Amino acid sequence: GASRLRGFGASVFVEMTELANRTGAVNLGQGFPDSDGPPELLAAARDAIAAGHNQYPPVSGVPVLRAAVAEDRAARYGTEYDPARDIVVTTGATAGIAAAVLAHCEPGDGVLVFEPGYDSYAANIAMAGGVARPVRLDPGPSGFSFDPADLRAATGRGTRLLIFNSPHNPTGKVFTDAELALIAEHCVAHDLIVITDEVHEHLVFDGRKSRSLAEWPGMPERTLVVSGAGKTFSVTGWKVGWVCGPADLVDPVRTAHQYLTFNSGTAFQVAVAHGLRELGPWVDGLRADLQDRRDLLAAGLAGVGLDVLPSEGTYFLQTDIRSWGHTDDLAFCRDLAPRGVVAVPTSVFYLGEPLRTLARFTFCKRVEVLTAAIEALRADT
Amino acid sequence: GASRLRGFGASVFVEMTELANRTGAVNLGQGFPDSDGPPELLAAARDAIAAGHNQYPPVSGVPVLRAAVAEDRAARYGTEYDPARDIVVTTGATAGIAAAVLAHCEPGDGVLVFEPGYDSYAANIAMAGGVARPVRLDPGPSGFSFDPADLRAATGRGTRLLIFNSPHNPTGKVFTDAELALIAEHCVAHDLIVITDEVHEHLVFDGRKSRSLAEWPGMPERTLVVSGAGKTFSVTGWKVGWVCGPADLVDPVRTAHQYLTFNSGTAFQVAVAHGLRELGPWVDGLRADLQDRRDLLAAGLAGVGLDVLPSEGTYFLQTDIRSWGHTDDLAFCRDLAPRGVVAVPTSVFYLGEPLRTLARFTFCKRVEVLTAAIEALRADT
Ligand SMILES: CSCCC(=O)C(=O)O
Ligand SMILES: CSCCC(=O)C(=O)O
Repeated sequence: GASRLRGFGASVFVEMTELANRTGAVNLGQGFPDSDGPPELLAAARDAIAAGHNQYPPVSGVPVLRAAVAEDRAARYGTEYDPARDIVVTTGATAGIAAAVLAHCEPGDGVLVFEPGYDSYAANIAMAGGVARPVRLDPGPSGFSFDPADLRAATGRGTRLLIFNSPHNPTGKVFTDAELALIAEHCVAHDLIVITDEVHEHLVFDGRKSRSLAEWPGMPERTLVVSGAGKTFSVTGWKVGWVCGPADLVDPVRTAHQYLTFNSGTAFQVAVAHGLRELGPWVDGLRADLQDRRDLLAAGLAGVGLDVLPSEGTYFLQTDIRSWGHTDDLAFCRDLAPRGVVAVPTSVFYLGEPLRTLARFTFCKRVEVLTAAIEALRADT
Repeated sequence: GASRLRGFGASVFVEMTELANRTGAVNLGQGFPDSDGPPELLAAARDAIAAGHNQYPPVSGVPVLRAAVAEDRAARYGTEYDPARDIVVTTGATAGIAAAVLAHCEPGDGVLVFEPGYDSYAANIAMAGGVARPVRLDPGPSGFSFDPADLRAATGRGTRLLIFNSPHNPTGKVFTDAELALIAEHCVAHDLIVITDEVHEHLVFDGRKSRSLAEWPGMPERTLVVSGAGKTFSVTGWKVGWVCGPADLVDPVRTAHQYLTFNSGTAFQVAVAHGLRELGPWVDGLRADLQDRRDLLAAGLAGVGLDVLPSEGTYFLQTDIRSWGHTDDLAFCRDLAPRGVVAVPTSVFYLGEPLRTLARFTFCKRVEVLTAAIEALRADT
């Protein structure tokens, strides 16, 4: 294979899911729900197939979905996008981020990225020949935080982009308004293009309000917002995502996506438009449910003596494995599987020298599944 | 935007479809059918959604589809693929080709490609920093052919790949066994990796048998076969494609696709597996139908004085616009639209200095649509 992908192999999610299948352990690794999205949404997709939405969508995505995305973001964030020019539908958020990076990162460009961070970012930067400049998120008793001095120090000459993500995978951190303001100011000061991955935007807990980095002054003109339907509506396999931003930044993203995929999932796009317009109450229910399940899993893990870090959003929470006397997250996860639960070693989400004392668990599973996982650990400890 | 995509803008299909919408002309530009795939296939997709196939597929694709693809290729070409290792499902063939090029083309590598050729190949080569080395297909009274000396001349030092395509878009050429043998020998002699786009493999006419370049000696170990369901089952919007080849070549493709998209369309994958196993007779019917529609369109265009080149497969036929006194295909297509029909100027499919005397028409439309197109031209000439 070509050198751009050297060092990138099968994703950890593949490995961990195989481990779960092999050991029969409860899979709290890869983040996908084990119950489906709203029946009305599934019905809308089936109807769209029956109604003949089976040929290529327009390269930017079906117009009704672009309109629904624009309405939704205006209503929730006050940010304005022209559905005809400022939005391109992609094959999930992953494809949107990949297209955005290939569209805007020149070989040699520096790309700021918080670590730990979602694994595709580093691969996309490598594909574009960019240079990742990691900024550490450090775990503490009140969650993860970063040192603004680290952000400044990582921003050398030739730094052109920031790939941002909040609510944040794999930490469960929701960046505060103060942090967002500081990051926005930094991006404006250094004239960075920002790709902000907001796929978990609806999954924020304890009464938090979701914010977009694009809301801050100076940001709309430099920010590509990436989001999607998979997490919002529990349909991760549909792979309907979108990229919103000023037309001059979105145009190259559309071009990249056109030649990487063209576009996909016409019937799913039609259904997601319906979901965005009509199924807000279902999403509110999902959010409340997930918060309960977070609490259930957190209490269960605490009950077997694992330190649980606060999770403010996403499908995920982090545990400090030193509470079990472990200092190697990979070994911890390999030990855990035969005891009945698969988690993800957080070190795989680092670009540089990783912290090895964290393990990620997902709580996006049914209550009985989470309960079974906790029971398995209890029986064994 | 980054320089890798400079010069690549909106695809010609977007522009031509807009032209059709603006003028109300019959759109014989972009190749997508205006009648849907087999009702049983659509029902299978709806059932898969209802049955809960709505979360991420495995990164290689759902096992039943990989098994069906392996069976299908063994039965039709005698080529053997291990569904567990040698096949990765992609978001349509376009995504498979993009992933294959990014997985195997180093910056500076030479990539042989026949021209005219499908527009995404050149964009993918540019994204990978490769150097396209075009080989001309020249139109003649018995169709398109190439000069083996041109193939040899294009193969300089540093040539590492061939992107091949048969049945061929945009010419409608189906490469003969003699041509395939010659190309295979050339690839073996120069130790090339071959990406062969066979998306129109089922759409070959006049009793032709579809062949895969991977059938020839020395080819299995160097060939990535790319195909998909869109054209075979008239579901271009589902974007279910696949890449088959030896595991050492497929592994990097899987990695690239994993980070470009992950994977998509779980329910559609399940349905396509059913289609490959059960709906061969429907595909036979489509093939016969398309042949009739090719003949209808060819006769209609000939009836208004346009020279029609032989089309042996695909959705497309070529016309020589000099028969109408034109020498500029772009001007021809712009003139044609207000007269009621949109075609694609073939010059857009060239990498180097294009031939400007051809225009491509698709016949993958309903008989009444083709008839309306011919009537419009008749009324006007
Ligand atoms: C596409 S697999 C990854 C799913 C996910 O978001 C995660 O587990 O982090
Ligand atoms: C993805 S749009 C192109 C469809 C097609 O194969 C063609 O018209 O050549």
